[in-house]
Amino acid sequence: MAVHRLAPTPDEYAYTFGGREALLSVCPGDLVEVRTEDCFGGRVREPGDLPSAVVPFSELNPVSGPIHVEGAEPGDLLAVHFVSVVPARDRAVSATFPHFGALTGTHETALLHGPLDERVWFYEIDREAWTATYRATASDFELTMPLDPMHGTVGVAPAAGEVRLVVTPASHGGNMDTPEVRAGTTLYLPVNVPGALLSLGDGHARQGEGEVCGTGIESAMETVIAVDLVKGAAPAWPRLEDDDHLMTTGSARPLEDAFRISQKELVGWAATMTGLDRLDAYQLVSQLGLAPAANVVDPNYTMVAKLPKWSLRDAEAYGGVHRRLRALAADYRAR
Amino acid sequence: MAVHRLAPTPDEYAYTFGGREALLSVCPGDLVEVRTEDCFGGRVREPGDLPSAVVPFSELNPVSGPIHVEGAEPGDLLAVHFVSVVPARDRAVSATFPHFGALTGTHETALLHGPLDERVWFYEIDREAWTATYRATASDFELTMPLDPMHGTVGVAPAAGEVRLVVTPASHGGNMDTPEVRAGTTLYLPVNVPGALLSLGDGHARQGEGEVCGTGIESAMETVIAVDLVKGAAPAWPRLEDDDHLMTTGSARPLEDAFRISQKELVGWAATMTGLDRLDAYQLVSQLGLAPAANVVDPNYTMVAKLPKWSLRDAEAYGGVHRRLRALAADYRAR
Amino acid sequence: MAVHRLAPTPDEYAYTFGGREALLSVCPGDLVEVRTEDCFGGRVREPGDLPSAVVPFSELNPVSGPIHVEGAEPGDLLAVHFVSVVPARDRAVSATFPHFGALTGTHETALLHGPLDERVWFYEIDREAWTATYRATASDFELTMPLDPMHGTVGVAPAAGEVRLVVTPASHGGNMDTPEVRAGTTLYLPVNVPGALLSLGDGHARQGEGEVCGTGIESAMETVIAVDLVKGAAPAWPRLEDDDHLMTTGSARPLEDAFRISQKELVGWAATMTGLDRLDAYQLVSQLGLAPAANVVDPNYTMVAKLPKWSLRDAEAYGGVHRRLRALAADYRAR
Amino acid sequence: MAVHRLAPTPDEYAYTFGGREALLSVCPGDLVEVRTEDCFGGRVREPGDLPSAVVPFSELNPVSGPIHVEGAEPGDLLAVHFVSVVPARDRAVSATFPHFGALTGTHETALLHGPLDERVWFYEIDREAWTATYRATASDFELTMPLDPMHGTVGVAPAAGEVRLVVTPASHGGNMDTPEVRAGTTLYLPVNVPGALLSLGDGHARQGEGEVCGTGIESAMETVIAVDLVKGAAPAWPRLEDDDHLMTTGSARPLEDAFRISQKELVGWAATMTGLDRLDAYQLVSQLGLAPAANVVDPNYTMVAKLPKWSLRDAEAYGGVHRRLRALAADYRAR
Repeated sequence: MAVHRLAPTPDEYAYTFGGREALLSVCPGDLVEVRTEDCFGGRVREPGDLPSAVVPFSELNPVSGPIHVEGAEPGDLLAVHFVSVVPARDRAVSATFPHFGALTGTHETALLHGPLDERVWFYEIDREAWTATYRATASDFELTMPLDPMHGTVGVAPAAGEVRLVVTPASHGGNMDTPEVRAGTTLYLPVNVPGALLSLGDGHARQGEGEVCGTGIESAMETVIAVDLVKGAAPAWPRLEDDDHLMTTGSARPLEDAFRISQKELVGWAATMTGLDRLDAYQLVSQLGLAPAANVVDPNYTMVAKLPKWSLRDAEAYGGVHRRLRALAADYRAR
Repeated sequence: MAVHRLAPTPDEYAYTFGGREALLSVCPGDLVEVRTEDCFGGRVREPGDLPSAVVPFSELNPVSGPIHVEGAEPGDLLAVHFVSVVPARDRAVSATFPHFGALTGTHETALLHGPLDERVWFYEIDREAWTATYRATASDFELTMPLDPMHGTVGVAPAAGEVRLVVTPASHGGNMDTPEVRAGTTLYLPVNVPGALLSLGDGHARQGEGEVCGTGIESAMETVIAVDLVKGAAPAWPRLEDDDHLMTTGSARPLEDAFRISQKELVGWAATMTGLDRLDAYQLVSQLGLAPAANVVDPNYTMVAKLPKWSLRDAEAYGGVHRRLRALAADYRAR
Repeated sequence: MAVHRLAPTPDEYAYTFGGREALLSVCPGDLVEVRTEDCFGGRVREPGDLPSAVVPFSELNPVSGPIHVEGAEPGDLLAVHFVSVVPARDRAVSATFPHFGALTGTHETALLHGPLDERVWFYEIDREAWTATYRATASDFELTMPLDPMHGTVGVAPAAGEVRLVVTPASHGGNMDTPEVRAGTTLYLPVNVPGALLSLGDGHARQGEGEVCGTGIESAMETVIAVDLVKGAAPAWPRLEDDDHLMTTGSARPLEDAFRISQKELVGWAATMTGLDRLDAYQLVSQLGLAPAANVVDPNYTMVAKLPKWSLRDAEAYGGVHRRLRALAADYRAR
Repeated sequence: MAVHRLAPTPDEYAYTFGGREALLSVCPGDLVEVRTEDCFGGRVREPGDLPSAVVPFSELNPVSGPIHVEGAEPGDLLAVHFVSVVPARDRAVSATFPHFGALTGTHETALLHGPLDERVWFYEIDREAWTATYRATASDFELTMPLDPMHGTVGVAPAAGEVRLVVTPASHGGNMDTPEVRAGTTLYLPVNVPGALLSLGDGHARQGEGEVCGTGIESAMETVIAVDLVKGAAPAWPRLEDDDHLMTTGSARPLEDAFRISQKELVGWAATMTGLDRLDAYQLVSQLGLAPAANVVDPNYTMVAKLPKWSLRDAEAYGGVHRRLRALAADYRAR
């Protein structure tokens, strides 16, 4: 078992997918222990640290990577299994950010209102108890909630030579901001360039569906991933698998187009795995599918479509790569 | 305990919210055993019964009602608790319908494509085993799945004298098509006219989130509801409560506006119940909320926003009306 | 030439399409001189008259009608030619209204912002010079601009027994708010109920495309219309014709769906009139069509699609009804 | 008067904004005679040349450039005046392309329909008569129409190191596909990188508003531009000016967001130029503005907002740069 470590120095963080040299090269079947910084580059530390004041716009949402995967070629599927995702600090942060969020005018939903107040919330992280504690800013309400750590941003270099800001989710992955990218889940990404060039960041100690205010509980993370390749199996859009569900994603605007993409992908995947024709698969998904929002705040919105694996009977996706990476993760933890 | 029965004759079914005389009058605290027909008026019985051929467009989605609730006045909240929802027949039906559904051109998403094939699926309903069995039409795939019966359409007469087709969900309720309207849930609707004029129908033996193909597993139902009033507490949009979650809904297009409505409603409700200011509530919902699609096929799309009740600590919505109706339902079942 | 007069008393104004008895009955080929009130019912008279304070919500946008047209049956086309549209007062008014307009959060685009300031602008109307004069409220800028009077709201009773608020544009017409409904234009509406039940109101001394702030230069009008029927020719959506263009409309959300409807309608109309197949007509419209916004503020947004009549060579729409009504209008003016 | 020539060889065409070395360097006040290829790289020559078969996806929409402008720095405004735009060949081409266009399912509006038929139309271009002739493919309809040549794609290198496919319009310009980019118009772009790095292509002999089928009358062009800089005056989104109108653009999805951006930009511009406060400018634009669609087919949709220059009284945009470039163009033509 090859285990690598990737802990970028401050000047090594990336702010785009594409356009960067790899920081690390690994082989299919390897594991990587990755340190990621929070979406504010760790600069929001005090109640008075307003993100728009302390973080230059071009340095929001740093990602760790890219990681070059040996043998990855355009058209392949890159499987990224999340072995563990653990907050790296005792404190995490959330905030409203001017003209960003689902319940405010934005740069695209361009209105004449001024911005909502910019405000910062600090959460105390207890890794022993596996909890985060919220404290209201304008009253004395306080609430302890379970951790559910995840990565908002995971992706590869885009196709056709594009270089995209990390904040934009699209078919190469990116800032999908779905809570489904948690430990125990395998993310499937299309490979667009030799080596795939995987990067990840934007950890959240937890996040509701939709990421309504524009931020999760933003936290630097100590994360372990295992990577693998399935030759020639690139999906059109990122997919996920955990022990119970197959999941597809769509990232677009308006939100119904993100929904349509995710659902068409799920219908097609179910058809491929069961031999159903497209209308029969459409019917099955219609009665058994789940459809949670991921984010409704980023430059593209993201919807997730989920199908319980029991509904596909004995079919196994991509030759069982999730099962094998699950086993590899168990070996890693047992060392 | 007053228990009424409402089983409309074929010519008594309603096809609008508003514009109809009440079929029944009940008091707050009463129960009603309601028979509802399926969305095709029970006319799709054989594989060759294409819905567009056997059901006149104006007779899609019949509802049972209206039910007049004594003392209900504009500005009140009508609570409708679902005591039980049980399929009334051994067979239920689903279908694609021309120019209707999330993955087809429609009358609004007007494209030059012809319609997708119109196809019918029959499901065998086993009320003992509490299952429905799917059979593919183009291969021999078969799958037995648990029932999760619900009502797609529940609403009251609209405000301002409007009369709306049953298929349109809006602030008066209507065809929201969320699987959350199941036994054990209380639906909160605004009262717009004296007596509220509640109607319901469009039962589904189960339905995935989004109702992607445009229909659930359409089934006539034997349903028991308990109704109550909270004076002067009308919500702007329908809300729901079950034992674990508070839920808000928004019905609009594009889908992000349905999302925004549901989330703003949830933020406002959480603020009211906890004393949090709006930004503190926005923050709390952002980290703890769930955001499943209800339908992405009807004239308005519907999103649901959910907050776990434990996050509100000791607060109880509307003076505990859900808890009381829960108890009333238990008494009914214990008779 | 039969010329009728319709000048409703204050309590005769209608606030819905559908659900009302006719105030007047006319025959195809008749003219009607109609008095319409402004969208605020004439109640905004002084700088301090904020619309939200002086006009009950249910009394916004009164319409004059319905007018029963003898012989009109479901499936027919009602042609409404605008002979003249003349402001009825020396002063007209515009305003921002809370949570209404294209550049503000609204009830559907539900955000956490408070409303923009509610402000009123009075325009001096000079019917001799055919001008309106704008005066800024916060500086001394003043501008005289040409009148271009139009009706924002024209429609018939909806299909299937629906009753819709006047503010909502849909396939029955309604509050489309396009500046194309001016003198010299013929509006084509589908007949949904016997007698059609035509109503109109919401005159604007002029209005930009999109009606961005939510109101035009709102003015009571003295308007003359001529009506006619084309049996069995009901369009799916309202259409317009002036001397130079054929026009189709679509009213929906999101705005691209309004665009799609209007364009598909135009493609279909051009195909019917020229014998082109659908793709050939699609191509022609793509190179010659115009696509102005009508409104991006009402419960449905409205787009207009326009094709120059010269591009159809000798084809004439609906057997020349626009030409005949044009001639009738000339006779009326020549009396 | 410095006049440059830019006629790229086939391997010099660019397919992205950003990520390319300049082909030419010019000074403010210089003119450039530019040869541009059509969107299919000139490869669709015979009726059987289906675009999807003869043009690799990554080679759609070649642009000529980038052109480095001496002294251009981030934050500056680049003015690009179109002196002349003349079709370079006797034949131009239009086509439907699979899953592209406003009236078809697309990769984002992802549906289960197969693609519409892919079909090609050739137009005969007569530069003497200044006409294009359309011929139907399925009947013998033929129509000669006036030329109105324009460029669909004009833009600069994006900000923040992004590299974007040429087909995507955004704040850096790109594939806005508005017929307003014609001879006599000045386009104002923000400078994001030193030298600005201007590229252009995608000429259309004419195009309707909305570019409904996805293509204009695609034509190689001989185009002359004059460029200038206004230091520190970068607009947030591309703007245009011709002799009669100021114009703003917005490129986003859904279409109402493109509309909102364009209108907010126009309100802000009008306020700046007249001293009106924002609500007074909002009011003025609401009554005098035009709002045509540009494209409703590209990865972002584009709307244009137009205000007649007479409404701003004596104000002149950007110190009269349009007037000066107009004069320079006259000098060029008079050589």
